[in-house]
Amino acid sequence: MSKSAAILVIGDEILSGRTQDTNSGHIARVLGSLGIALSEIRVVGDVEGRIVEALNALRAAHDLVFTTGGIGPTHDDITADAVAKAFGVSIDYHPEAYRLLEARYPPGEFNEARKRMARIPEGAALIPNAVSVAPGFHIGNVYVMAGVPMVMRAMLEQVVPQLPRGAPNIAITIEAKVMEGAVAARLAAIQKQEPDVAIGSYPFYRDTGTGVQLVARGRDRQAVERAAAAIEAHLRELGVAAQRIKQVVPDGQS
Amino acid sequence: MSKSAAILVIGDEILSGRTQDTNSGHIARVLGSLGIALSEIRVVGDVEGRIVEALNALRAAHDLVFTTGGIGPTHDDITADAVAKAFGVSIDYHPEAYRLLEARYPPGEFNEARKRMARIPEGAALIPNAVSVAPGFHIGNVYVMAGVPMVMRAMLEQVVPQLPRGAPNIAITIEAKVMEGAVAARLAAIQKQEPDVAIGSYPFYRDTGTGVQLVARGRDRQAVERAAAAIEAHLRELGVAAQRIKQVVPDGQS
Repeated sequence: MSKSAAILVIGDEILSGRTQDTNSGHIARVLGSLGIALSEIRVVGDVEGRIVEALNALRAAHDLVFTTGGIGPTHDDITADAVAKAFGVSIDYHPEAYRLLEARYPPGEFNEARKRMARIPEGAALIPNAVSVAPGFHIGNVYVMAGVPMVMRAMLEQVVPQLPRGAPNIAITIEAKVMEGAVAARLAAIQKQEPDVAIGSYPFYRDTGTGVQLVARGRDRQAVERAAAAIEAHLRELGVAAQRIKQVVPDGQS
Repeated sequence: MSKSAAILVIGDEILSGRTQDTNSGHIARVLGSLGIALSEIRVVGDVEGRIVEALNALRAAHDLVFTTGGIGPTHDDITADAVAKAFGVSIDYHPEAYRLLEARYPPGEFNEARKRMARIPEGAALIPNAVSVAPGFHIGNVYVMAGVPMVMRAMLEQVVPQLPRGAPNIAITIEAKVMEGAVAARLAAIQKQEPDVAIGSYPFYRDTGTGVQLVARGRDRQAVERAAAAIEAHLRELGVAAQRIKQVVPDGQS
């Protein structure tokens, strides 16, 4: 049975529409390649009560939770405190985090704000930050990472070796210049024949024409191939031009 | 008091990392311009139980809920049924939706799959779709829209005139080539002085150098201006080059 994961994105800048969250998509693709199913994403603002509530709901419902954002030096960075509160543990300077950060700054510049980044909930293990030193951390089933995409990616690389692995989802994508309503009945029939494959239908509207991308996804390669072949056979019956634009690839790259 | 809103994004393609959700950001910016605070975003897959659970949680907690995705003709489009289940109402062909869709297709092509798009929960009002006919709908405090961005935007335009309005958030953005840890203490002090302004600090790492964007947001224009001026005064004290890269703009464009 594959593990279930959730992402908690923390930050007013996502909810205001100022910043496009791209971290979730990156984490989703990495998890997919490991065979971990991402079941839910939540975005909340820089409000302690909301972070605590969402984190406690997600960590109870899923095997793994990844958070992004809110671990910098400024007053709006409240994730570490919220995580400590969610777990009911204390928070204080972590000796190693403190030492790493102290070494980063010239004498006299390791100020109170920067020391805040060394505050880590009791019992958490650090996640190294190869980009800008200030670490993330791991407590229980929760991985707490930065919001800046470059930093988040560097932290996730450190986390990946610790994660469980399952059979990765693979996907085949077929693009056809047909409206999805014309193929929906057969798609539903193929879906019934292949219950272990998830068949997705994604219409597109381009200047060069409209059509649909049909994606067969699953952990069983032969079943995914069978579903894709059945879709292609149906498109041939209809006399519709179609091509596999993605051969077997890990899900997320589909 | 401004209204609180949430977005529920529905679709396996977001959770797999295949598709970048840009609908949430667009809705966030539109809501911001109306003075409606977006409090939460959730993303769930094409699983009825999860859609029902998330929708019931969000519609109880917020004044307004916007959903995107899952209202097409294929077997993986289950949003309308899930919404009916969440509200405990029946679902059937909506006469007007049926008529609009029937008129769209050549004789004989209005098949069962396409008729599915006319299935609307009892008591819902249609949201017109100027792009591809198949309507969204509005039931209780929930607005159900398409996932294809062009279609979602067309539907949202129809919805906007029905929405309540508040004082829009406005924002001023100041960019400075300084590390946020060097200004964090004063930012916190300014935040305390201006409790009605939310001050955000967003570091950037570019090839041309690192720095921070400092954003003052709020509904009270004079308070936002005061906070921005205080931030600029501090940067001058530090001898740091800084500029307003965005003057007073609606939040989301900050």
